[in-house]
Parts: sequence; C-alpha cells; structure tokens
Amino acid sequence: MNHLVSMRQVGKDDILDLIDLAEKIETGKVHPDLSGRLGALLFFEPSTRTFFSFDTAIKRLKGRSLAMSGSGTTSVKKGETLADTLMTISQYADFIVMRHKIEGAAQFASEILDIPVINAGDGTNQHPTQAMLDLYSIYKTQGTLENLKIAMIGDLRLGRTVHSLAQALTDFNPTFYFASPRHLQMPKHIKDELQNKHIKFEEIEDIKPVIPELDIMYVTRIQKERFAVLEDYEKVKNAYIIDNQMLEDVKGNFKLLHPLPRVNEIKPEVDSNPHAYYFQQAKNGVVMRQAIISKIMKLV
Amino acid sequence: MNHLVSMRQVGKDDILDLIDLAEKIETGKVHPDLSGRLGALLFFEPSTRTFFSFDTAIKRLKGRSLAMSGSGTTSVKKGETLADTLMTISQYADFIVMRHKIEGAAQFASEILDIPVINAGDGTNQHPTQAMLDLYSIYKTQGTLENLKIAMIGDLRLGRTVHSLAQALTDFNPTFYFASPRHLQMPKHIKDELQNKHIKFEEIEDIKPVIPELDIMYVTRIQKERFAVLEDYEKVKNAYIIDNQMLEDVKGNFKLLHPLPRVNEIKPEVDSNPHAYYFQQAKNGVVMRQAIISKIMKLV
Amino acid sequence: MNHLVSMRQVGKDDILDLIDLAEKIETGKVHPDLSGRLGALLFFEPSTRTFFSFDTAIKRLKGRSLAMSGSGTTSVKKGETLADTLMTISQYADFIVMRHKIEGAAQFASEILDIPVINAGDGTNQHPTQAMLDLYSIYKTQGTLENLKIAMIGDLRLGRTVHSLAQALTDFNPTFYFASPRHLQMPKHIKDELQNKHIKFEEIEDIKPVIPELDIMYVTRIQKERFAVLEDYEKVKNAYIIDNQMLEDVKGNFKLLHPLPRVNEIKPEVDSNPHAYYFQQAKNGVVMRQAIISKIMKLV
Repeated sequence: MNHLVSMRQVGKDDILDLIDLAEKIETGKVHPDLSGRLGALLFFEPSTRTFFSFDTAIKRLKGRSLAMSGSGTTSVKKGETLADTLMTISQYADFIVMRHKIEGAAQFASEILDIPVINAGDGTNQHPTQAMLDLYSIYKTQGTLENLKIAMIGDLRLGRTVHSLAQALTDFNPTFYFASPRHLQMPKHIKDELQNKHIKFEEIEDIKPVIPELDIMYVTRIQKERFAVLEDYEKVKNAYIIDNQMLEDVKGNFKLLHPLPRVNEIKPEVDSNPHAYYFQQAKNGVVMRQAIISKIMKLV
Repeated sequence: MNHLVSMRQVGKDDILDLIDLAEKIETGKVHPDLSGRLGALLFFEPSTRTFFSFDTAIKRLKGRSLAMSGSGTTSVKKGETLADTLMTISQYADFIVMRHKIEGAAQFASEILDIPVINAGDGTNQHPTQAMLDLYSIYKTQGTLENLKIAMIGDLRLGRTVHSLAQALTDFNPTFYFASPRHLQMPKHIKDELQNKHIKFEEIEDIKPVIPELDIMYVTRIQKERFAVLEDYEKVKNAYIIDNQMLEDVKGNFKLLHPLPRVNEIKPEVDSNPHAYYFQQAKNGVVMRQAIISKIMKLV
Repeated sequence: MNHLVSMRQVGKDDILDLIDLAEKIETGKVHPDLSGRLGALLFFEPSTRTFFSFDTAIKRLKGRSLAMSGSGTTSVKKGETLADTLMTISQYADFIVMRHKIEGAAQFASEILDIPVINAGDGTNQHPTQAMLDLYSIYKTQGTLENLKIAMIGDLRLGRTVHSLAQALTDFNPTFYFASPRHLQMPKHIKDELQNKHIKFEEIEDIKPVIPELDIMYVTRIQKERFAVLEDYEKVKNAYIIDNQMLEDVKGNFKLLHPLPRVNEIKPEVDSNPHAYYFQQAKNGVVMRQAIISKIMKLV
C-alpha cells in the first residue's frame, strides 16, 4: 500500500491488517514513530473535523504537519494548476493527506507524485479513512466483522460514507437494512454490486420492526449542503430521528454509529445511552488514521 | 484545579501558588514537560494575540497544539451544536483552551467534558489567564501583591480584564483609583463587592494628582468593537492618554501596565520609559500560561 | 548576520558561505538543531508557497513555528500599529519570518526588534531568501556561480526575484540576456547598476538565437495581480512561452528555472525534460532556508 485513495484498493486482508494494527497502537503494543517526518494536510475543501483528526494522528505519532485549509491557496489564486501545487508541496512534505471537492483528485495526485497520498475525501466519491474507522468501530464493539446485521439510515444516496462502508463489508457476509427518504435511497450501482455478490439487503420504510435484530445502526446526516433547493431539504430532514425509546429493545451488543457532525438525527438524550458509540467512533478515527499513516509510511 | 474557567475559583493561595510556579519556570528551576500531550486551541472568536500566547506556552513546554481559529468550523456551519463540537474535539486533545463570545461557554465546556478546559475569554465575562498574568507582572515588579496603590484607567465598564484583576486583588488589601469616561465607569456589582470586602477605592476624574502615589497604573483600551454607535466611541476614545510628562514624578517602583493591544491610550514615546512594562507583561503571559497549563495537566 | 532583510547586505563571501552550508545540510554533513526554538511566521500578505517552505525548513531543523497568515490579525483590526504587533510577537518567538506588502517593512522590523528578522518578501522590494535559493540552484547545477550565461525572461520590471538575482550575481562575472514584453523591461536602476559594475548584458526580443549559448534560463510569471488594468495583462501574458522544441539545442548543463507558481510560461510537456529544474528548485528552497535560519540563529 503506497497510497490510500479508494476502498476499492483495500481487500479483506488489508482491512483486517489495518484493524489489527490500529488495535496494537491503541493498546500500546506497537509505537510507530513518525518523528522527523512531515505530513502535508492539503484541505482544498475545508473540513475542520477530518483535518483535526488527521493532525492529531500525525502528532500522536510524533510527526509534524504542514497545514493548508481552504480552497484559497494563494498559488491557486495566481492561476497555478492543481498538478503544480501538488508537485511543489511534494518537494516539502513526506506524504500528503488531501481533501478536494473534485472526484478523482486524490487518484490524480497519487499518479503524479512520488510521495504517498491519503485521500481525505474527494467530492461525493470516496472517503476511505472514514470507512476504515467505521470498520474499526464495528470490529471493536462486535469482536468481528462477520455475519452482522447492519441498518443504514438517512441520506444513502449522497453520503459517500455509507457507500464505502457497504462495499467494504461485502467480504464479511452482512445483512443490510437501508432506510431513507424516497429521494435519498442507496444508488442503483451499489445495490447492483451487493446483488452480484449475493449480499442480503432490504430497503425498508419503517425501521422499528428490525431494531431488535440489529448489531449496528449507522445513522447519517441529511446534508443540507448537498441540496440545491432548501425546500427539498426541509421536507426530509426530520425523516428519521433516533431517540431512547426506539432503542429500548436492542440487543446487548447493539451500537449506534454516526460519522458526525449530526444535526438532529439523534436526540441528545441518546448520548448517555450505553449503546451510543459515535463519540468513541470519532476517537477510533484518530487511532485508525495512525494505523493508515504508519502503513503507508512503512513505519511498521 | 481541573479547569480554569473563572477567577472566582482561584483563591489567594492558588494565586500565590501559580505565581510561584511561573517564577520557577521562568528562572529554569522547574521544567514541566508537556511532550506527548495535545492542547486544542479552540478560538471560536478569533484573538491573534491570546492565541499566539497560548500556542507559545504549549510549545515552550514541548507540547503540541491543534489550532482552530475563527467561528467558522465547518462542523458548526453544518449545524452542529457547541456541545457536539466540544465532545468531538475532546476525543482528540488532552486539554482545551477555549475562547468564545458567549458568556459561560467555558463553564459549559468544563461541565460536559472529561478533559481540562482553560477559559481564554468568554464574551465580557472572564479572562482568568489575563488576570493571572497581570498579577504575575505586578508581583514581579513589586515583590508583593500586598498593600499596593493601583490606578485603573480607561474602559472600566466593559473591560473584563480590570474586573477580574480588581476582584483577584481583594485578598491583598489594595487601594484602587478608578478613572474612566462617565459612561464607562466600573460597574456597580464590582464596586459593591469591593465595598463589602472593605477595599479602599476612589472614582476620580483627574488622574494626575494621584500619580505620585501609585505603584501600578493599569491602562486599558477603549474598545471600539464594544460600541454600538461609532460616534459614542469617538467622543471618549481620547479621554485618557498617557505620555512621558505625566510620569515625571512617579515612584521608583512604579510600573505602567496595559493588556494590549493599545490604540493611542499610551503614546509611543512612553515605550522607552523605564516605567513602561506592557511588553514585558506580554512576555509574562507566556510564562504564566505555562504555569497554568502545567498545573491543570498535573505536570508539577 | 543578525537579520536577512535585503540581498544588499549579503556579500560574495556570505553567498558562498550560505551555499556551502546548504550543501552540507542537504548531504547530511551538518545537522543544525533548532529544537526548543520558536519561529514566528508573520505573513501579513499571504503566500502559501513561501509560508510552507519556511515552515518546512523550521520543522526539518526540529524547531517549532507560530503561524500567522493573512493581513487580518485581530490586533491589527483593533487598531494596533505594526510596531506594537511586532514588539508583542517578539516576546513570544525566538525569530521572525515576515512577509508584508509594504516596502521596507522587514527593515523596520529589524530595527525595532531584539530578535532576528528574515524578510520573506516586502512588496516589490526584496525577497532575499528567494534570491539565495536561486543562487543555490544555479550553483548545484553548474558547479560554480562564475562566468555563466543567464537569460531572464518574462516580467523583468515588477519581478523582485530577477532584480535580486541579477544584483547578487554581479560579483560572479555573468553575461545576462533580458527578454521581456516592452512595458515589463528590466528597470533602469538595475541596468545602471550592471553597467557601473561592467556586467555584460543585452536586452533581446527574440530569445531563440541565444538559447544554445545559455547555462541558465530563468523564466518568471507575468503577474496578473500587479496589473491595474486586466486588458494590459491579457496583451502580454503569452509573450514568451517555453516548450520542448525551443530547448532542443541547449547545452548539456543547461537548466530551466522558474520561481513558481507558473501560469503558462512553461508548457507542462517541459516538466519531464531533463533540463527542467523548477521543482527541484522549490526543494532547494527548503534547504537554503534551513541554512539561512541556522546562520541567523547561530546554530552553526
């Protein structure tokens, strides 16, 4: 693994390897050392949370970071191409973590640069480190990735997180329940892929009946910024709201995940519910990113 | 001390303890070590100077910082609550330094988080590390905090700095002189508090007669950004301007303090006056913040 | 050397000294150690690339940086003078790297501060670290700075880079060819200076005939942001465009330099030409800035 651009390049063994490494880092069994190395955080599209998570991961590994946030690098404003910006930064840094609103931007970077590239989100396309931290969270709470019953709720059409996660889980014999407003359903190409791989999945309207069956419920935000018309957003934003009452009959191992930020998909009262796991999930993100950086930079 | 939210939680002994620790750090008698620890600088309201001072303090202690400046965290823009932002950041960092325009924001953070919170200013309410660095500056130049004659000049109504400082000094038997434009006088609740504690204070119009008596003159900026109407600001901004002539008859130990930035409350000619102390005061701020972080993080 | 404000203060011996030090740092013969030291990057005028290069240099030396980018320090907005901002920052940092749009700003800083100041560009005036990295790039590729034939192409009127570089080379018996649109010719004061020092130079319209003679071709961007009228920019922006065909008959040691960012002065096809050197030039910038910081901070 020289780059991490897409979950499509991460096979079942890679997933289990990264989870194993993350676990060892978290429990202090290994201490990958990034000291003396510089990671450039190139966030052409700002994302405070993902930025912070990567910056934390680099610093926890004793590395150092160069931070660029906002589309407005002055060189870009002066008319520089993305290729030139990347080529220049690659003279300074030892690896690049990159977020860009254009799909394929990270792939492009990985092709022209001699240093490792980690995709921190390219438009609606891929966000592989988010998928990996979700997998790590599932593994940590369930002890396995195999044979789990997983509901995905909210915006399943535009949320790249659920796409990557669904695809990554296909190697582990999951059963999926997809619940979303009508216009935000899981895209056909994902459903086709699941069908081809004989993955069990159901599109449901009412999530309540399946809740007692679930191991994992993965809720996503209906992203206002992805709607062209505000009115359309207002219609669906409250379609699925999780509260404590809905979680009364869950299994003991059940966990509620959310990539955050949430708006109101999960009521604050749920935060203290022992089945709520989204803040720990954010913490797992740092550890998994430490593992990914360690692997990419050949520290282990 | 798990958090530093308000000077109200810092008693006389705590003040002297922190001053003692700051002195030991400054003179190299102790070397608190923050290496391997991450402080998040969450400046929802930007403040370059305070931000830099804390960032310097963290780095002088060999720690590392995560830096967020500006109200616009992308998560906030996406509709996230302050509580969620704080909960998430607390998964990444070991402590939080927080500035927010809403009074009580730091108190709120300290109540919901498991990691230490340092208040770097919450609206017009509290700015305890500024009060502590002022106290340290007074102590360093006077050798004591006891029985001092201190004039406070400028905007005494809205300047949280002078409120915190006046309150903190009540344990040390000060004599205060308050000089301000009529509409910017020290608020009644502070004056009541001083009266209840039998602290000597006078509200004066002309500061010149008392100058030869003073140990400390603390000048504050009339803050344009706190005026709703620009005309009101223009009327009072030049009310008290300190120049070298006014300082001709001061005592040998007299020092002129200012929290900075200044606009024109002190003429530049005063900078080279041996009684001017405001730039050293800024330097003391770094040391005192090192002491506060060391205490909060149990490094000493 | 306590400051680096202008190339005018850097004599022939200083240039060779800095190149020698840069070479030793690059080849690992010396390891200057900036650990425990703080450099403040004060970029009142933003410049992502120069900012990154300095930040990288500081971190490669194991130092730490305080980063301020954008004119909008909150203190400046509150009405603080540049002198006060600088005085305050100098209480925090061990040295200052400063970019400012006003000519002479770095000189001013060096005069009022007790800590070293490095000029990272002051308006159209000086950018000495750029000149030094150009000299280092020339030296590395030619093995000498003496007796070289150097063409400078593009905006020679407003590009401070070519001014500083031409001046710095006067001690090394160069032959210059200047090619630029008519209104962007090398300024008279530079040409007078060259004449007084008996430096051979020619202003040419057609660069093709001289290309086979050249050791170095230094191309600069026609800077849109320096034009008051967009139409004037559009007229000249494509005046000189370098492609592979033009470089067919160059000497073996010939190198093509560009301070970057480029817009379209050099066609992308040239990037893989073995005579293209502009990305390595950017890398040399980090090393040369390490050398400059090391010298200024007396690390060697």
